[in-house]
Amino acid sequence: MRISELSAASGVPLPTVKYYLREGLLHPGEQLAATRAEYDETHLRRLRLIRALLEVGKLPVASIKKVIEAVDDHSLPVHTMLGTAHYALAGEVPSATQDPEWDSAQAEVDQLISAFGWRIESWAPPRAELTEILSRMRKLGMKPDLRPYAEAADKLVTEVEMNQISFDGPRDAAVEALVLGTILYGRAFDALRRLAQESESARRLAP
Amino acid sequence: MRISELSAASGVPLPTVKYYLREGLLHPGEQLAATRAEYDETHLRRLRLIRALLEVGKLPVASIKKVIEAVDDHSLPVHTMLGTAHYALAGEVPSATQDPEWDSAQAEVDQLISAFGWRIESWAPPRAELTEILSRMRKLGMKPDLRPYAEAADKLVTEVEMNQISFDGPRDAAVEALVLGTILYGRAFDALRRLAQESESARRLAP
Repeated sequence: MRISELSAASGVPLPTVKYYLREGLLHPGEQLAATRAEYDETHLRRLRLIRALLEVGKLPVASIKKVIEAVDDHSLPVHTMLGTAHYALAGEVPSATQDPEWDSAQAEVDQLISAFGWRIESWAPPRAELTEILSRMRKLGMKPDLRPYAEAADKLVTEVEMNQISFDGPRDAAVEALVLGTILYGRAFDALRRLAQESESARRLAP
Repeated sequence: MRISELSAASGVPLPTVKYYLREGLLHPGEQLAATRAEYDETHLRRLRLIRALLEVGKLPVASIKKVIEAVDDHSLPVHTMLGTAHYALAGEVPSATQDPEWDSAQAEVDQLISAFGWRIESWAPPRAELTEILSRMRKLGMKPDLRPYAEAADKLVTEVEMNQISFDGPRDAAVEALVLGTILYGRAFDALRRLAQESESARRLAP
């Protein structure tokens, strides 16, 4: 298809498509003549991925470039490619503080990780994030028990979310599914928790 | 205690304590002399609540005022007071759009709510939020099944979170516990989901 047809089919405005081409986010079409290039399914898929990273993942263009590089580097195994996207979504990672609260929270997070047999890189952003949250909860006087939350997360991820990603299809599509699933199921769960809270508060207090 | 002791005990800087007094967020101490007022436990609890709303809930001062008004209005039942805080945390609520996707998503959300026997106000922010997320997921071509998420949310809220709020103690403390629990367990669950995703991706793809 022509670039105007690519724009129409994807819903991405023509100047934006051209911008992605200039930035190297979108690969060039096949040059048929000096003023005409042919675009195909792979371009449509790439535009879907860019839109997911931009609009749902809220990633800046620099981070999107890194994710796209990992998608295009076919020497990278799928797990590594997905990890690049996954870590990019994490935003700013809290850094360890020099206090005993941090160390004990980190130890508890690591115990939880090993209790579930999870395979996690030591530099994984959610490991530091969970440590920060747990240490914060303790400083505020809460006595959180994260185990039931970890169980629920494990079950939802292994039984629902990961089944919705096709790992042996196009690399763009796998990353897109991971980004959409991570962000949108996360937001949906948050809204569901708030609904359950409202209802439970009504049940206990306004019978 | 004197105002300087209140500042030291709460960890809130003295100028900030004075600002909260001027703004009416903190109730005046008992005036013992022209230049001396006495503060007590209720002031400490109020400062904890303000900090929770500000630092964890990230609420603007205008919203904090509304929540504090509900706490101070003892004619409001506890459920209504908690609801005021809960809805304040929701931020901007998406408004219904005039398309069939929104209507069908709204219908599915309402089916879910009634399947779980949840008691939810029709104007509850998470009802509109979930509708917006579901309709967005569908427009992006996802086929989400929210039921397992609703089940997990229901279980965690009724069996863990709501048990950590003391409903018959001081009103400040109940609202503080609700705010901390809503935000921090939410963030913890999100980090746990990401850990489970990383591990499951490793298990499936890099055995």
